[in-house]
Amino acid sequence: MPPEPFFAGPGIDRADALRARPDEVAALLGNERATAVMWSDGAPALGIDGRLQWQSVAGDEPLFLGLDNGVPRFSTLPDGTVPTDSRAHFGMLGQLAPDDAPLFAAALSLANWHRRHGFCSVCGSPTDPNRGGWSRECRSCSAEHYPRVDPVVIMLAEHNGRMLLGRQPQYPPGRYSALAGFVEPGETIEAAVARELFEEAGIRVTNVRYLASQPWPFPSSLMIGAIADSTGAALVIDRTELDDARWFTRDEVKAALTGDGGASFLPPPRFAIARTLLEHWVAGSAS
Amino acid sequence: MPPEPFFAGPGIDRADALRARPDEVAALLGNERATAVMWSDGAPALGIDGRLQWQSVAGDEPLFLGLDNGVPRFSTLPDGTVPTDSRAHFGMLGQLAPDDAPLFAAALSLANWHRRHGFCSVCGSPTDPNRGGWSRECRSCSAEHYPRVDPVVIMLAEHNGRMLLGRQPQYPPGRYSALAGFVEPGETIEAAVARELFEEAGIRVTNVRYLASQPWPFPSSLMIGAIADSTGAALVIDRTELDDARWFTRDEVKAALTGDGGASFLPPPRFAIARTLLEHWVAGSAS
Repeated sequence: MPPEPFFAGPGIDRADALRARPDEVAALLGNERATAVMWSDGAPALGIDGRLQWQSVAGDEPLFLGLDNGVPRFSTLPDGTVPTDSRAHFGMLGQLAPDDAPLFAAALSLANWHRRHGFCSVCGSPTDPNRGGWSRECRSCSAEHYPRVDPVVIMLAEHNGRMLLGRQPQYPPGRYSALAGFVEPGETIEAAVARELFEEAGIRVTNVRYLASQPWPFPSSLMIGAIADSTGAALVIDRTELDDARWFTRDEVKAALTGDGGASFLPPPRFAIARTLLEHWVAGSAS
Repeated sequence: MPPEPFFAGPGIDRADALRARPDEVAALLGNERATAVMWSDGAPALGIDGRLQWQSVAGDEPLFLGLDNGVPRFSTLPDGTVPTDSRAHFGMLGQLAPDDAPLFAAALSLANWHRRHGFCSVCGSPTDPNRGGWSRECRSCSAEHYPRVDPVVIMLAEHNGRMLLGRQPQYPPGRYSALAGFVEPGETIEAAVARELFEEAGIRVTNVRYLASQPWPFPSSLMIGAIADSTGAALVIDRTELDDARWFTRDEVKAALTGDGGASFLPPPRFAIARTLLEHWVAGSAS
């Protein structure tokens, strides 16, 4: 079996039912074992072992993450300057311990959402955290707002045994990866996959199959990985989105994934679901 | 093959690339074939044939839906009172022509989003439609906001050949349907399925498989349909969410789907993806 995507896994017990009981959350905050996320440069801080760093709670931690083998875990909004470019965080992902990755994703996505939702989109008034930090309520119109999760399709397209990959302008030299795009209102996953592949590469696809999913906390996406069959090989590349797109053979993908020095391209990093999709394809589990 | 979910399908050509070219959208607005959605009670109006009703564009239609076999289609925000309870619209879904359902979903979801996003969540200032209505931009801080699509998992759980279904308090008498819940930040689809089934019914599941997806414009969800294997049959029902939950045999589900008068429950309506999931299971394509 190919590995699970990075950031996947059950994470901790979110204990959702407690969010509606502020007295119980307050009691957990007073629990001597309770700890809160430490932040560094706008992301959860990691120790040298790649594990999340925790500190004792200090008063009014507004975000209740859940119960970690009985330990109450809280989060706050990070202080200081927040990198606006999510790629600033990618360097640390190579260090992050896989077991802590789901909680890292939850804490960072939730913080990213709170940072940009201090005001009510309905009436413009200030909002305050509610439900242990899993919503915000407007002080004026009482509208309740919930954290966003943006579904994104990310997909491989196959034709005659070859796989379509593309490169975005900001990628490191030589890297090719799966094409991707946001699911829009009124679309299925399958329709979004077909639309994005046509828009970005000019191909028409059939037989869209779901493969795996991954939370992606930059700022708060749900990556939905799929594979589809292209009806042809001719490409019309959208140069506003992509530097290039090309078909690669299975041998080329295998060489890239094994880190072969002579590989024809640099594969996506281990923490990207695009790599998991390529591993599925090479292993034959995506057919 | 079981049918596709209602609201599924490619819909019209969204012509996304034009959204970044306001001059071209304005030219399409002046096209003599251009038409705009008619609204009735907060939803797109239907004719007696169940088709969407269109009117000529009147000046400043801010939302560009796309090209419908070359015909430019626009939308506005609906006037008048908007039903706050989405179930007010369910009656009309039985009339809606399946071919028009994807466009109905796109227009209604987009309108639902604009209605609640007149102000910037970052700074509280007014926002204006941008990109042909596919974003809103803040007049003050220039933050750009994109339409929300909220991913929801909706799932069947199987144990010893029986299927778990539940009923929400607002269902009509006798109806049972698939359990469902929002995907949260930091979760995979598979983790959300497992969490929701444990929270609402107290069961632990393995082997979560994706089946189908559906846009759901009340207000703007992406329903992600799945099936999982339960490790046991004992239920702990969350009575704040559900009136009841029960295991049903395949014969019971078959009888319900065929409208058998002696069926032990009323199945979900044809426009709900829960029904599609049950059809998959009965057809054996969900194994």
